[in-house]
Amino acid sequence: MRLDQRALDQLRDVKITRNYTRYAEGSVLVEFGHTKVLCTASIDNSVPRFLKGQGQGWVTAEYGMLPRSTHTRSDREAARGKQTGRTQEIQRLIGRSLRAMVDLKKLGENTITIDCDVIQADGGTRTAAITGAAVALIDAMNVLLEKKKIKQDPLKGLVAAISVGIYQDEVLLDLCYEEDSNCQTDLNVVMTQAGEFIEIQGTAEEKPFTRTQANAMLEVAEKGIQELIKKQQQALGW
Amino acid sequence: MRLDQRALDQLRDVKITRNYTRYAEGSVLVEFGHTKVLCTASIDNSVPRFLKGQGQGWVTAEYGMLPRSTHTRSDREAARGKQTGRTQEIQRLIGRSLRAMVDLKKLGENTITIDCDVIQADGGTRTAAITGAAVALIDAMNVLLEKKKIKQDPLKGLVAAISVGIYQDEVLLDLCYEEDSNCQTDLNVVMTQAGEFIEIQGTAEEKPFTRTQANAMLEVAEKGIQELIKKQQQALGW
Amino acid sequence: MRLDQRALDQLRDVKITRNYTRYAEGSVLVEFGHTKVLCTASIDNSVPRFLKGQGQGWVTAEYGMLPRSTHTRSDREAARGKQTGRTQEIQRLIGRSLRAMVDLKKLGENTITIDCDVIQADGGTRTAAITGAAVALIDAMNVLLEKKKIKQDPLKGLVAAISVGIYQDEVLLDLCYEEDSNCQTDLNVVMTQAGEFIEIQGTAEEKPFTRTQANAMLEVAEKGIQELIKKQQQALGW
Amino acid sequence: MRLDQRALDQLRDVKITRNYTRYAEGSVLVEFGHTKVLCTASIDNSVPRFLKGQGQGWVTAEYGMLPRSTHTRSDREAARGKQTGRTQEIQRLIGRSLRAMVDLKKLGENTITIDCDVIQADGGTRTAAITGAAVALIDAMNVLLEKKKIKQDPLKGLVAAISVGIYQDEVLLDLCYEEDSNCQTDLNVVMTQAGEFIEIQGTAEEKPFTRTQANAMLEVAEKGIQELIKKQQQALGW
Amino acid sequence: MRLDQRALDQLRDVKITRNYTRYAEGSVLVEFGHTKVLCTASIDNSVPRFLKGQGQGWVTAEYGMLPRSTHTRSDREAARGKQTGRTQEIQRLIGRSLRAMVDLKKLGENTITIDCDVIQADGGTRTAAITGAAVALIDAMNVLLEKKKIKQDPLKGLVAAISVGIYQDEVLLDLCYEEDSNCQTDLNVVMTQAGEFIEIQGTAEEKPFTRTQANAMLEVAEKGIQELIKKQQQALGW
Amino acid sequence: MRLDQRALDQLRDVKITRNYTRYAEGSVLVEFGHTKVLCTASIDNSVPRFLKGQGQGWVTAEYGMLPRSTHTRSDREAARGKQTGRTQEIQRLIGRSLRAMVDLKKLGENTITIDCDVIQADGGTRTAAITGAAVALIDAMNVLLEKKKIKQDPLKGLVAAISVGIYQDEVLLDLCYEEDSNCQTDLNVVMTQAGEFIEIQGTAEEKPFTRTQANAMLEVAEKGIQELIKKQQQALGW
Repeated sequence: MRLDQRALDQLRDVKITRNYTRYAEGSVLVEFGHTKVLCTASIDNSVPRFLKGQGQGWVTAEYGMLPRSTHTRSDREAARGKQTGRTQEIQRLIGRSLRAMVDLKKLGENTITIDCDVIQADGGTRTAAITGAAVALIDAMNVLLEKKKIKQDPLKGLVAAISVGIYQDEVLLDLCYEEDSNCQTDLNVVMTQAGEFIEIQGTAEEKPFTRTQANAMLEVAEKGIQELIKKQQQALGW
Repeated sequence: MRLDQRALDQLRDVKITRNYTRYAEGSVLVEFGHTKVLCTASIDNSVPRFLKGQGQGWVTAEYGMLPRSTHTRSDREAARGKQTGRTQEIQRLIGRSLRAMVDLKKLGENTITIDCDVIQADGGTRTAAITGAAVALIDAMNVLLEKKKIKQDPLKGLVAAISVGIYQDEVLLDLCYEEDSNCQTDLNVVMTQAGEFIEIQGTAEEKPFTRTQANAMLEVAEKGIQELIKKQQQALGW
Repeated sequence: MRLDQRALDQLRDVKITRNYTRYAEGSVLVEFGHTKVLCTASIDNSVPRFLKGQGQGWVTAEYGMLPRSTHTRSDREAARGKQTGRTQEIQRLIGRSLRAMVDLKKLGENTITIDCDVIQADGGTRTAAITGAAVALIDAMNVLLEKKKIKQDPLKGLVAAISVGIYQDEVLLDLCYEEDSNCQTDLNVVMTQAGEFIEIQGTAEEKPFTRTQANAMLEVAEKGIQELIKKQQQALGW
Repeated sequence: MRLDQRALDQLRDVKITRNYTRYAEGSVLVEFGHTKVLCTASIDNSVPRFLKGQGQGWVTAEYGMLPRSTHTRSDREAARGKQTGRTQEIQRLIGRSLRAMVDLKKLGENTITIDCDVIQADGGTRTAAITGAAVALIDAMNVLLEKKKIKQDPLKGLVAAISVGIYQDEVLLDLCYEEDSNCQTDLNVVMTQAGEFIEIQGTAEEKPFTRTQANAMLEVAEKGIQELIKKQQQALGW
Repeated sequence: MRLDQRALDQLRDVKITRNYTRYAEGSVLVEFGHTKVLCTASIDNSVPRFLKGQGQGWVTAEYGMLPRSTHTRSDREAARGKQTGRTQEIQRLIGRSLRAMVDLKKLGENTITIDCDVIQADGGTRTAAITGAAVALIDAMNVLLEKKKIKQDPLKGLVAAISVGIYQDEVLLDLCYEEDSNCQTDLNVVMTQAGEFIEIQGTAEEKPFTRTQANAMLEVAEKGIQELIKKQQQALGW
Repeated sequence: MRLDQRALDQLRDVKITRNYTRYAEGSVLVEFGHTKVLCTASIDNSVPRFLKGQGQGWVTAEYGMLPRSTHTRSDREAARGKQTGRTQEIQRLIGRSLRAMVDLKKLGENTITIDCDVIQADGGTRTAAITGAAVALIDAMNVLLEKKKIKQDPLKGLVAAISVGIYQDEVLLDLCYEEDSNCQTDLNVVMTQAGEFIEIQGTAEEKPFTRTQANAMLEVAEKGIQELIKKQQQALGW
């Protein structure tokens, strides 16, 4: 039995709230239990220099944690003058995952920037961020369609992400902070609506894992992601 | 008549929600109309180097805006690698205002850091931040008292802040973003519960202001701050 | 009686020396007692990106203290790799104050940068800087007029600045460092030749101040500024 | 048939040269075909602050590319003033992988820093780096043993890493730069001597991959890693 | 005949003004013609970490140019966030030159920092800085002696510096900016009172120079430095 | 007799290996005894902003040391976020020395960047770097000629560099690290094929040097450089 009475393969309560703030073209508050991430999508009618004149768009992401989103306060990255390696790693992962949802040609010469800011952190912030950001991104692309800035919907399909881990040799889905801190292995998985993989990032924290365990984790992750995609669809009113 | 039908000397709807997030010793969401700022207070059982061994505590503040809290997206300060002059100016103002509430001797060798992060910005973020941070600071000091880390309550009294401005030669209270962008003069005032001034910062944006106008603005500000202090007292259950 | 035998509402000896260095289009050494600030104005025939193509100019300021201008040596900001919050706050104040003197339309697409470098600091460096920089700015605008780079004089009028404070419940004009360190309240005022306010920045250092005290301080400041403007006029040979 | 005539599941020529430079406690040049990485291990008789007084050691890694190790010159990170997100991601991966080889308790209060500097880059620099760094780390730990600075060998076993990818729906082992640039999916795998996983990092570059493909890639990776571990053993004279 | 009618081997007017500012333990304004550098010496009763506990002191220097000390305005290094290579090169040169004057053992565990800030630049700022800083350093060491912080005078002897150059195949002493910009070769020389060399830094700007020319330049430099040392002695009242 | 049995005026074994890496237009490993520096030349078909449209090219250099090229590990400059003053000083010296070899007009609007990265450091890294970089630069210019990007050979002649020093009052050629650390005076000399000087940089480390000693050092340096130029010519097959 888990800390919060969940079954081994059970997600925490997931909530996806659209239009959480007023100004962004997409604005989603995503909650995985106590983890809360605000994902906003902003449209810019230009592209980065390396894409200029190629008739395609770009999707990128930035990630940050409010200093006291965590159990103890962390330094503010803006005050320290640089983003940590962890932050950069996560925002690169979010960006790659979101680009997998989009036909960049159909996006035209527009950039959509997704800001994922963690309001409260109880483990799984990167997977919650991807799951919420996917919805914010769709909202922003719909703004482009409604305003006739683009002609075709660039959306290729939904993407969601979840963590799985091995704790005392059992596979757990959607780790909270305390489980994450103590597990042997931590695996983050990003998948498409069609059940295919975008990213797999597995790390043995304490002891190595076997191929059998890897397979077991991927199977549980797949189940969790199917549920997340249903939550996204409900939020989108599909 | 103002954009949102308010009277000239009327505050926007003000909400102060305590315990907004779980981990901080004080956590307040403060709303002045569409402006929303999350203020968290974190306790650290040490003091900055310049105060070591003097038997007193410290209160400091940091301020940030989420990149898309505003009408158009701003660069993320953590990614740019430095805080803007505006950010530094605001967080220094918040820190000074809060220190005016506290008897630092009674705080013992503890530091309380208040993080004010703007979730949504519609003008007046610094005054909302001070008003909400004051409540978060009190909650954190009460944690120290309850845990017997300090013996006497360091609180000297409440502090709140409001903006006033001159628009078409009329004095307006609590400017929203659009009013702020167009007014001739912008004055931020921080006052104590006792009706005395902590800070006055007035800037002529378009044309200089007279002493008569300065006096008129201070008078309207005082009225607004008395109302804010009542809101703080209600939120605190006093 | 004050430390240096001045009356409560008496300025220190003020000197404004034009053409202090050879190369700048405006170069003024301003002295308020022992406080000495070198203000140079440099013309650049272009404007910042946000003003391109709008047919108007820009005035901006930078501020710095020589490391040993002060009683004890401070770190060199260039070596630390960033400007302090205090420096940024002051240079933003100087820039805003100077822009209030100028009709930016008449300045054409030129930028004038005023560098205010503190050679010796005995309190009041920001007010001395504004007072001296105003003169350097006029000299630089006259260079533009003489060289026929602009047709109309962009000058709207003189601006000067002074500090006032409350020490042992008395209002003091033009605080030196030692007075500044010990006063209850410190108020910096920037005014026009016409006796109207550009900026008011008041901070209660030790205990809050009342509206009556605020008024008393503004009144003494106004007297001081009228005297400073006469000094500027003499220096300019008006 | 591959660009360089290799079989699909064939490694490039792998060379591991110990004692490549004179001063480091471990110094290994590792070559995977044209990819060349210099891995040096340096011993420091202290530990980072977060480990002080816990009677255990630390292993960490830094990674860099010489500016013209690549087909076109990249900016020098030291001149730009920061490491890219990619660099930080890679050096974190190397560090985690190496720590999996070591019983940190047995290492005593020593830190071993592995510098992985890419002399020539033709794809797979991170996997070559891990494979070479493992040998340099062992050499450094043997120095500690020989000098009687530690009593027990902290080595838990060898670790090596390889990339696999999917190109035109075929699984390829050990991608060179040109293959890597064109493949649909790129998977980096770190494994122990015992055939268990330390890290799996898979990214769909162009189109998502299936579970079957994931399994096929892991199988080919496992084969490659067994061969690499033999190369390490030969280099070590085991 | 030179631009300013000087003979080929003639120094510009040299002035050394002690006690130029009030707070520093040594404060010298040095002028070589239109070049003006303010050199202040500050005492700190500690030493850098690498010297702790060795019973010796340290002398170090920092250098900066006011942004408009030059013919056209340069960026402020503090605003750019880093010192240029030229600045670092010069301050390292000044520091080494001054350390050659001092018996660091006799200085005790004190650090003297010399700040050389260029008020006006017309060529030769680094040589003027060394020449003036030497005097400021002596004043600061005398403060230590007078306050009985040290027992023996650490001074080994005076040091001064001058530039020489080759212009149209003639050797010129003490180049002004315009000469410096056009000369073929630029050589900076630092010498002791005893006529021995501390530093020689020669650079062929346009075409290489011969040994004969090198010798001719060193000879003229020696003459100039003897005159500078007399100026230092006069300034010191020796 | 020297540490490694060399005669006082004898170079260490010098090796110059061209085409050391595959991708750069020029790639040279230069060895002065145990000192090994990799010098790569990269062509960019543009020029820095300050040269745009002037029909001439540019040659510049960057320098770095691998963290464990030295006897003890140094911090990685990319991780610290800035290059040291020493690094900047050296790369400026290398750049100036190489530009003396080239007729920039004949180079057309191309930039050649030489990266000098120290693989192993046993003293004399800057002189080895210049000597090797000269060969890499020639290889890159020959690529431009072969590809018909330029019409005339921009090469004016070879340049090489060597260190000399005074140790126990004897003049030594080509100091290794241990000699360098203990010598009284250290002089780096850059000369042309024609026996003329490009740079002389001499520093008295412990005690000043006389003109006679300066002359003796320049004479020994000249001999060493003639030998280095022969090595360059052999490597180039001239």
